[in-house]
Amino acid sequence: MATVGSARILLLTFLVVFCVGPVGAQFTPFRALPAQPPIPDENLQSPAKIALGKTLFFDPRLSGSGRTACQQCHNLAYGAADGLALSTGDDGARTARSVPTLWNVGFYTIWFWDGRATTLENAVESHLFETNVMNAGSAASVSRQIAGIGGYGDQFRRAFGDETISAPRMAQALASFLRSLVTQDSVFDQYLRGDKSALSESQQRGFQTFVDSGCASCHFWVSLAGPVPGLAFQTGEGFYELFPNYPDAPSDRTYKFSADLGRFQVTADEADRRLFRVPTLRNVAHTAPYFHNGAVATLEEAVRVMGEAQLRVNFSEAQLEDVVAFLNSLSGQFPQIAVPQLPQ
Amino acid sequence: MATVGSARILLLTFLVVFCVGPVGAQFTPFRALPAQPPIPDENLQSPAKIALGKTLFFDPRLSGSGRTACQQCHNLAYGAADGLALSTGDDGARTARSVPTLWNVGFYTIWFWDGRATTLENAVESHLFETNVMNAGSAASVSRQIAGIGGYGDQFRRAFGDETISAPRMAQALASFLRSLVTQDSVFDQYLRGDKSALSESQQRGFQTFVDSGCASCHFWVSLAGPVPGLAFQTGEGFYELFPNYPDAPSDRTYKFSADLGRFQVTADEADRRLFRVPTLRNVAHTAPYFHNGAVATLEEAVRVMGEAQLRVNFSEAQLEDVVAFLNSLSGQFPQIAVPQLPQ
Repeated sequence: MATVGSARILLLTFLVVFCVGPVGAQFTPFRALPAQPPIPDENLQSPAKIALGKTLFFDPRLSGSGRTACQQCHNLAYGAADGLALSTGDDGARTARSVPTLWNVGFYTIWFWDGRATTLENAVESHLFETNVMNAGSAASVSRQIAGIGGYGDQFRRAFGDETISAPRMAQALASFLRSLVTQDSVFDQYLRGDKSALSESQQRGFQTFVDSGCASCHFWVSLAGPVPGLAFQTGEGFYELFPNYPDAPSDRTYKFSADLGRFQVTADEADRRLFRVPTLRNVAHTAPYFHNGAVATLEEAVRVMGEAQLRVNFSEAQLEDVVAFLNSLSGQFPQIAVPQLPQ
Repeated sequence: MATVGSARILLLTFLVVFCVGPVGAQFTPFRALPAQPPIPDENLQSPAKIALGKTLFFDPRLSGSGRTACQQCHNLAYGAADGLALSTGDDGARTARSVPTLWNVGFYTIWFWDGRATTLENAVESHLFETNVMNAGSAASVSRQIAGIGGYGDQFRRAFGDETISAPRMAQALASFLRSLVTQDSVFDQYLRGDKSALSESQQRGFQTFVDSGCASCHFWVSLAGPVPGLAFQTGEGFYELFPNYPDAPSDRTYKFSADLGRFQVTADEADRRLFRVPTLRNVAHTAPYFHNGAVATLEEAVRVMGEAQLRVNFSEAQLEDVVAFLNSLSGQFPQIAVPQLPQ
């Protein structure tokens, strides 16, 4: 089941369907980040559910060893990731890919680098049980574990109406919390809302290079990660791109990107070989190292690599500097998150 | 260098010196928790220093592997500890003892179970370099590591007047943050401040049992951990107790407490064999499992063990219930701590 052919062809469809006309003369395929992502009818947000999700996020008792909380690899102080190329899961094994940020994660249509989860709830629930992530055992065991902690029953009742504790409910609460992780009011958002002086001259030049050289064919709309649900795509429909586009590029020899077959590992469909979900560029200055294998340490090198391996463009030093300046304009305001107190 | 003979003899000195007379007829060797612990002249508190300390606390780049932040084992959501008997350090090895809470840690006169650190700053700095804690390498390497992160220089300048980054300054900032971790206004504090109805009847009975059976010989004053600096002891002078007092108690066979020689491992002085720092009982309901080896899972069993192995007292079921109720009155208000954003 190949999900897409090329992200760029999809962009064309998207442009025709959504952007021509109503947006008008000053067309730009970018939008300021809304206050919240699309919320599924099956899991409406509520303060109680978000609070429960936050509590679970900090609770290592969800993991098999009792040592690993979500916060361990998705450190909310550190780009909601961990600053590492690859991470060590609850079972002590290395992860296959680099931890992506959770900031604005609700704006995707599919989850994980290979899009193997088609809802955020499924992504969270499967992560609970992956051995080199949370290694939580079975739905029954993790439910028993959490139900055995006095105080959680009351929190589940407030969130869901009764005290039933189950893995799907944990995933729903965690997903609700994750949908609250929105970083508004970046400099770029100020620019998109009409303050044309918000971007520095270097950032404006970088933005122009970003659009002209083709970065924006995939990195567009609110998250600079392609469509959000309801916009050309629905939740569960993936927006992927071949990476690297040019595996003969020298950077692929250096960084071995193409060793990972991406979505092919999920579908076994040749058309999905080396397809990866297009990642958000919001807060990208806070989420080094870069790419699915975390092989690139700096943003400047990441931009150079994208030019070379993806677009057959050799950016000049000045262009690199400008594009990096532009990418720095995508850092939003991180919401204040008070550390919860776990029930005992 | 034996530091003390018996905590109980010291208590007598303490009572004579500090409590007879001025405290008056309603004598109690307990005091409500002040808003902050004693602050050393060498490391005065400031908002900038506390903020820097909080940032460092969440930053895994202090550790050798880049994976371990202070927050990993001293989870501020989870009793400022990790809920485990023993923990796994940055080098993957098990810790020798159970992680103690950091709440109210500034009220001690010595630090660690064996009192091997005589200032909080020394405790933090030595933890940075212990291989099975943070494993940070050398003072030079961790300073270079943190100095290489743009943004920290400015934070150090705000905290210390210039941008010099050093391990002692990191320890000072972290210690300042730790001194801000005070949990005021427990039910017991309300009681001590004059609201005699704050404790339930069960808690009042438990308190009486706690005092009458001898728990309070060691667990007294503001932290229920003995003297604070300036009160019979100065910072660096240890308040220790032999544990277990009665190694022939059945619980020592079960839990193997006496396998750990405690302060003897620091001093090699026979008089220090099996001496341990008296730990705070504040928030003890949030810091399971119990004792230096984390061998006891529940508070009720911990109280039973203390009766049997420490005081030669066999508490009845009713007494256990009441003492546990009293210990629950020692849970304070946890300050709201907003997750910081680390410099990149």
